Parts: sequence; structure tokens; C-alpha cells
Amino acid sequence: MIREKVTDRDNALFEAGIKLGALYHQFTGSPVNLDTVSSLEHAIQESISVQPYVKEISVKIDRDMLKSRLNNEFGYTELQGLMLDVKITVKFGSVKVKVGMKYNAELNYPLMKIDELEELEETSN
Amino acid sequence: MIREKVTDRDNALFEAGIKLGALYHQFTGSPVNLDTVSSLEHAIQESISVQPYVKEISVKIDRDMLKSRLNNEFGYTELQGLMLDVKITVKFGSVKVKVGMKYNAELNYPLMKIDELEELEETSN
Amino acid sequence: MIREKVTDRDNALFEAGIKLGALYHQFTGSPVNLDTVSSLEHAIQESISVQPYVKEISVKIDRDMLKSRLNNEFGYTELQGLMLDVKITVKFGSVKVKVGMKYNAELNYPLMKIDELEELEETSN
Amino acid sequence: MIREKVTDRDNALFEAGIKLGALYHQFTGSPVNLDTVSSLEHAIQESISVQPYVKEISVKIDRDMLKSRLNNEFGYTELQGLMLDVKITVKFGSVKVKVGMKYNAELNYPLMKIDELEELEETSN
Repeated sequence: MIREKVTDRDNALFEAGIKLGALYHQFTGSPVNLDTVSSLEHAIQESISVQPYVKEISVKIDRDMLKSRLNNEFGYTELQGLMLDVKITVKFGSVKVKVGMKYNAELNYPLMKIDELEELEETSN
Repeated sequence: MIREKVTDRDNALFEAGIKLGALYHQFTGSPVNLDTVSSLEHAIQESISVQPYVKEISVKIDRDMLKSRLNNEFGYTELQGLMLDVKITVKFGSVKVKVGMKYNAELNYPLMKIDELEELEETSN
Repeated sequence: MIREKVTDRDNALFEAGIKLGALYHQFTGSPVNLDTVSSLEHAIQESISVQPYVKEISVKIDRDMLKSRLNNEFGYTELQGLMLDVKITVKFGSVKVKVGMKYNAELNYPLMKIDELEELEETSN
Repeated sequence: MIREKVTDRDNALFEAGIKLGALYHQFTGSPVNLDTVSSLEHAIQESISVQPYVKEISVKIDRDMLKSRLNNEFGYTELQGLMLDVKITVKFGSVKVKVGMKYNAELNYPLMKIDELEELEETSN
């Protein structure tokens, strides 16, 4: 067992994970239909963008999946993790990381993963 | 003890309560600052408007309270119940009810209450 | 249009609705499997029981539905509204109301409804 | 700019962040008082423990802070991030990481951080 020193890279990944976990558990369950989906996407994006170290964020809700799940009687559904396509760029010190969440059909799971990792040569915010 | 028949009025009040409880527990905790507060207000309003029997809804987040709670280090805070001023009109059958949630300073509590109750003479959606 | 005075009965129904809306949007989305479902049921029950005017509450999560939705890869799922069977008794002044939420297969919807309504002859808390 | 390959260490940190973000945004807002705080702690702990790669988790809610925030009129409050003391151990491949969330009085913020990081010499689940 070797104890390691915590690096910018470690913190960048940790912070990126926090944002995805927060987004998911804050906003899934929100009532939504095709008329209101844009305002929900926009608000989620803006809300998570105010958290520390977030540089960019894009949030897309799958309209086809949403449409297929609208309740026949009441004409709406709830935001589910499976509908979300999210990309977040986090920068911590000298490291920039892009992470995302996207429905993985094989696993039938809204999979969160690390998409890209860069060690920047100089640190500028 | 007298068992009572459930009326439109009963259902209107019950449905109105559901909407306020849902709104509160779905959206409090959302990260927010002064730049993003409008999109959050708008999304909450639209989200709850798709639920059954909602005729009108207005959602205001108190900017002064929000500003006073911004974290010094990170420049944002979370939506708290105390910041919310909500008015919802629900119609069920022949009854229309206006309910609201607003910070009550004396109780230090985001108080939900029935503001207005009307039995309509004819039912039209 | 006739404006009506707000009665204990109105408030009992309104408060009962608040509790169901709150429960649903606070706790759906919680990670859960067959080993942890009891502690989640228990905590939901206790949590909502502390809210004003709640006299009794029972929360059941459908094990069969839960089991059928466990993710093959990761062995857990999330609490969904469809899995919930909830009964709440609220008392406001001279009125006691029993409300509930239960999956309605025909509507494919977690339906909330008023189950019983009693005007008590004398008011005792 | 140097693109980096994603390691077990990166994934361990990313997954650990997800768990803390999820826990925070799923459970803050839950109604709670001194009689029900234990069942809430227990349920949060069990709920997050079912998520992928979690090896250990401890959740403590600060009783003093809770007590100081009980509403005078209604005798309960809501779980706030500031009340939480959480420790989570995540293992991904050959790396084990301990992360935590704890109220930081100086920042007046529920700070999440990496507490310990170990590269294991051999991988065993």
C-alpha cells in the first residue's frame, strides 16, 4: 500500500464527479413535457454552472424518450436519468477534465464517464 | 364521527397541496446565484404547470435573501424554501382554489396556505 | 362565483396533499436494493411523520417491482413513484383525513387520492 | 496541452465525487427532528452504499446543529448540508480513495474533500 499526495488531477476528477452526482439527484423527478423541456434543460445547465470549478456545461434531454414516456391520461412525465445527455468541463489548477453522462443501452443505465483529461502547461483561470 | 363524501372542493384542495409539496422538495437545494435565478424561477414554474389541474402558477425567488446568503468564497448558494414566493391556481371540477407559499418571518417558516376558494356556478375547463 | 370561507376540512385536505407531494419528490431517486429497502421505507415514514398535522403514516415499497428493475450490471435501482404504497392520516382541527398513493396499473401512474374523510364531533389533538 | 490516459486512480476519484454529489442532493431537504435523525442517517448510509464501487460509508448528522435549527412552532427542521459529516471509501481497480464532506466553519460551507488515496499493490475486490 502506498499513500499518495493529492494532485490537481485528482481534485479535478473528484470535483467533476460531484457535479454529475449533484445534477442527477437534484433534477431527476422534475415534472416535464415537450413544451417545458427547454426551460428545464436551460435551468439545469445554469444551476450546475455556478458550482465551483465548472468551466462549461451542456445539458440535453432526449425528446424521443421523453415523448415515449408521456402519461396518456395526464400528458406529462418526469425527468429520468436515462433521458439526460450531459457534458461538463471542470478545471482545477493545471488540469482540465471533460466528463459526461449518457444513456448506455447495453447496460440500460445512465452511465457517467471521463471523456477527456488534459494537463495544461500553464495555469490560468 | 361522520364519514363524508369526497367533493370537488376536497379534491381541489388536495391537489393544490400536492403541487406545493412537490415544488418545494423537488427544487430546493438547487445551486443558484443572481445570474441564474431567473432561469430557475422560470423552469420551476413551467415544471409544476404540467401537473394535473394546475391552471396558473407564479414562482418568485427573493433576490435580497438570495444575495445575503451567497457564499463568500464560491459566490453561489442553494435555493431554500424561505426564498420562495409561490402562487398556484388549481381547478378541480366546479371548484377553483388559489394557494401559496411565502416566508413567514414570525414563524421563521415557509408557510403554505389557502388564499382563495371559489365554487364556480358552471363547470368549464 | 361564490367565495368560500376556509374550513378545517379544507385545511386537512390541503395539508394531506402537501405531505404526499413532499414525500414523492424528496425520496424518489434514492438508490435502493432488496437489502436496503427496509431502512429506506422506515426513514421515509419517520421523516414525513414529523411534518405538521400528520397523525399516522405507513410507507411500503413494492419488492417485486423493485426486484424487476434491479440493474443487471450494478445490482441496484432507484426508488420510483410506481413502487410506493403510502397511507397518511392528517388531522386538522375537527377533521381527520386519510389519503394515499398507490400505483394505478390502468393509468400507469402513481395515483394519489383521498381515501377517507371524517368530521370529528369534538376536537382533541 | 497533453492528453492523458484515464487511470484507475482517475476513475476512483471521479466515482467518489459522484457519490458525495448524489448523497447531498438526494437527501438534503428531508424533514427531520431528534427522534428521527437516526433512521435518516441509517437510510442515507444504506442507500449510497448500493452504488457502484462504494466499499464503506459512514453518515453522521450533527445533533447540536439540528437542535439549534428546530422550528419553534412545528418542532422539526430539514436536513441541511451543513449538518452532514460523511466519509466514503471507494475502490476502483487498484486504487482506494477515502473522501468526505464536513462543515467548514471558516468557509461556512459543507466542504467535500479527498482525505486519503492509496494505490494497492494487487487488485482484489
